Amino acid sequence: MGKRIITISREFGSGGRFIGMEVAQKLGVKYYDKEMIGQIAEQSGFSPKYIQENAELSPKKGLFAYAFSGRDQMGRSVEDMIYEAQRKIILDIAEREECVIIGRNADFILKDRDDVLNVFIHGNMPEKVKRICGLYNVTEQEAIKMTEDIDKRRMSNYRFYTDQKWGMASNYTLSLNSSVLGYEMCERIIMECGGR
Amino acid sequence: MGKRIITISREFGSGGRFIGMEVAQKLGVKYYDKEMIGQIAEQSGFSPKYIQENAELSPKKGLFAYAFSGRDQMGRSVEDMIYEAQRKIILDIAEREECVIIGRNADFILKDRDDVLNVFIHGNMPEKVKRICGLYNVTEQEAIKMTEDIDKRRMSNYRFYTDQKWGMASNYTLSLNSSVLGYEMCERIIMECGGR
Repeated sequence: MGKRIITISREFGSGGRFIGMEVAQKLGVKYYDKEMIGQIAEQSGFSPKYIQENAELSPKKGLFAYAFSGRDQMGRSVEDMIYEAQRKIILDIAEREECVIIGRNADFILKDRDDVLNVFIHGNMPEKVKRICGLYNVTEQEAIKMTEDIDKRRMSNYRFYTDQKWGMASNYTLSLNSSVLGYEMCERIIMECGGR
Repeated sequence: MGKRIITISREFGSGGRFIGMEVAQKLGVKYYDKEMIGQIAEQSGFSPKYIQENAELSPKKGLFAYAFSGRDQMGRSVEDMIYEAQRKIILDIAEREECVIIGRNADFILKDRDDVLNVFIHGNMPEKVKRICGLYNVTEQEAIKMTEDIDKRRMSNYRFYTDQKWGMASNYTLSLNSSVLGYEMCERIIMECGGR
């Protein structure tokens, strides 16, 4: 029951991205996160900077702004075009190679495949705040604000494009609290569940 | 980081109860589910049959019926009294011995302890339906209706007493899809995460 592809969704500050990188390295497979952005940019014609700011977090301006944002001739918003470009790249990658994909609703986009292990990494606020303060050199209060803002956007984006609730256990094969279990244990469990 | 207590919440038909029994047996610790009902009955003065029908699934009649149900002198409904009796027993058990506790919001009731591993077991509908048909000798349609009804009651009970959403990954240390991973893998992962 080996799973060729591992998707990792994560709460901000939970270390999910780091855990995904470690798993990819240990398995010797490719890891996709910001690396994807360049490819997305090529396909969609947007600048890498614009996509980095908008991808995954859109529709970040809320539904009202979304409703009146710029559209192409087919009525698609900029957000929809970026999402569609991302979706195609994720489908292509999954067809082509074993890999770890971080975020970007990859669990939902790849739902018709049976060789995918969908993982959700979450954590306790004190540990997440500590990690964010260290990584981004911000105060505790700023870190709390960041987790709230970023996870709210991820939740809203996920709901918008998947009609599912972000963070519900039933969306993922495996969900882990990295604050309680520790990163190494999370990595081991993910590899074990992936049959690797 | 060995966890003395393992709580298992589960979707109906996911095999969570079976997995919990197996884990308890393998660890040589006590397993609490229906066995608790006798103890609850003693403390609360209700008959075991009444509690079996009402515990965990209450307030099953909906908020309107709940609002007008019988109360004692302190304004507590029958459901509240059963819940309180359950809560006390769970706190006592956790203080006293290593064990596996199935359902009954034990994850929430024991939230102040740091020696508890909270697990949520879920599954895919086809596998759950197959299991329920086999266990209860019902048709597929009846099995689907059973899962919907029972999980809805569990969700409503959990929300009512914990103010949290049942099935959200963040409520549990570990959530597993037993249809994808298989029961044995789930048991192994639970024991590994419990540091056992």
